[in-house]
Amino acid sequence: MYSNLYVEEKMEDKYAIKFKVNKVLFSGKSPFQTVDVVETELLGKMLLNDGLIMVSERDEFVYHDMIAHVPLFTHPNPKKVLVIGGGDGGTAREVLRHKSVEKCVMVEIDEMVVNACKEFIPQTSSALNDPRLELIIGDGIKYVNETTEKFDVILVDSTDPIGPAEPLFNISFYKDIEKCLSDDGIVVSQGESPFYFDEMQKKLLGIKKEVFPITTLYNFSNLTYPGGLWSFTVGSKKYHPVKDFDQERVTNSGLTFEYYNSGIHQAAFAIPSFMRQNLGEYIQE
Amino acid sequence: MYSNLYVEEKMEDKYAIKFKVNKVLFSGKSPFQTVDVVETELLGKMLLNDGLIMVSERDEFVYHDMIAHVPLFTHPNPKKVLVIGGGDGGTAREVLRHKSVEKCVMVEIDEMVVNACKEFIPQTSSALNDPRLELIIGDGIKYVNETTEKFDVILVDSTDPIGPAEPLFNISFYKDIEKCLSDDGIVVSQGESPFYFDEMQKKLLGIKKEVFPITTLYNFSNLTYPGGLWSFTVGSKKYHPVKDFDQERVTNSGLTFEYYNSGIHQAAFAIPSFMRQNLGEYIQE
Repeated sequence: MYSNLYVEEKMEDKYAIKFKVNKVLFSGKSPFQTVDVVETELLGKMLLNDGLIMVSERDEFVYHDMIAHVPLFTHPNPKKVLVIGGGDGGTAREVLRHKSVEKCVMVEIDEMVVNACKEFIPQTSSALNDPRLELIIGDGIKYVNETTEKFDVILVDSTDPIGPAEPLFNISFYKDIEKCLSDDGIVVSQGESPFYFDEMQKKLLGIKKEVFPITTLYNFSNLTYPGGLWSFTVGSKKYHPVKDFDQERVTNSGLTFEYYNSGIHQAAFAIPSFMRQNLGEYIQE
Repeated sequence: MYSNLYVEEKMEDKYAIKFKVNKVLFSGKSPFQTVDVVETELLGKMLLNDGLIMVSERDEFVYHDMIAHVPLFTHPNPKKVLVIGGGDGGTAREVLRHKSVEKCVMVEIDEMVVNACKEFIPQTSSALNDPRLELIIGDGIKYVNETTEKFDVILVDSTDPIGPAEPLFNISFYKDIEKCLSDDGIVVSQGESPFYFDEMQKKLLGIKKEVFPITTLYNFSNLTYPGGLWSFTVGSKKYHPVKDFDQERVTNSGLTFEYYNSGIHQAAFAIPSFMRQNLGEYIQE
């Protein structure tokens, strides 16, 4: 155990958050980014890509519950799910808890992330060997452009629009997503911070609005992302995630979650006034 | 402007958050605590007591909207309001926006906080000269023990239970609060973090449950508090803040807020499963 080692995430030189590190478990440089897994004193194991904190064991349940269960309980019968990114495995893990899901395709560009998490963070990567999971190491943009498969739910579990995830914030990607979704499909994407990256939220929702009849966003809290409050954006062909949400489906699923429940599902779509003012034209509440 | 000055808040040696400082506006040591006001690059002016970030100009609206408007729109006709603490003035500012409020008494123990905010953070302290405000520099514990006044709403806008606010987390204080509340009165208190200080949340709710027939808690997000997700606890004699909430009152008030709206009011009481498991016995949803 080191005596004075910290991992520090910075936002330019304006802000930094740091956590005491007891052990460095993995450090590598893939063709796409740097990949680190450290064991922190406060939050358990933590994955960092290019020095940005992706997940911590202590609170990954919040992010993964919210990216997966909100759309999977909005769509009445999700059988096929596509995850773009999500190399730590936590999103696929939650998707595969739904009994209706027959197949989950996960397309992660960076094998090093998958392997590091398989070896050092079993908490998130535990479902990566599920027989219903098809793990493709490859480019998600190329995949949605080329595949002829149709999905009921697509989850874009990406890093921020710098580095390898940058093209995931373009309209051509979402036009391909639309093509890969079934006629009543839903896409949910990691949607940035309403305080620090509101322009990026606007851009992402603007793109979705050009492609989908129903667009909105919902919020959750994260222990390690700047500002705590963070969003997911939604594009949907048929079902509105609040108006068409049937809380009986949560009860009847027999599933329980550490963060998600039907009250949280609905509450996540309550939009603070400053966000409504900024993003109102893209949000159908 | 300094070139490399930061203000850093630590949680033991496990975690720290830091912000670039352009200017130190005030640094003092009162009989109770250290008091600093700095101008940060990212969040505007910031007040720190004993090195802990209290408010920043950028996001103080979230905290102050949520501590004030949730109880003031739960009680049907709040005329008299007591604020314990809240030296920066932001809570009193929001209370005084309600036309029904005839009198707001604010009891702040540390005159240095009030004076520093009056001089350097007019954004929060702007209402401290309102003729409906009675500002008492003194001990809130002594005040509620001795006063014969009755209040419709009491807001405990305190620091954490270390330093001067420690006695605010005791049952004798809440027995006195109960005595100072009208027959349909409500108390709301700064309620700590569900991730990092869940034992303190349990203690505070346990105390309230011994004194009030209705207890619950609600969540909000904060840019600078550890973990982002933070709570307020509620003790109420008559009105349940969700079941008895009439959203028409928000519309009819003619008031608009940067964070609060009637959807946010209700959504704030949606309790994540892990909190429900931990605090369920103290929460009436």
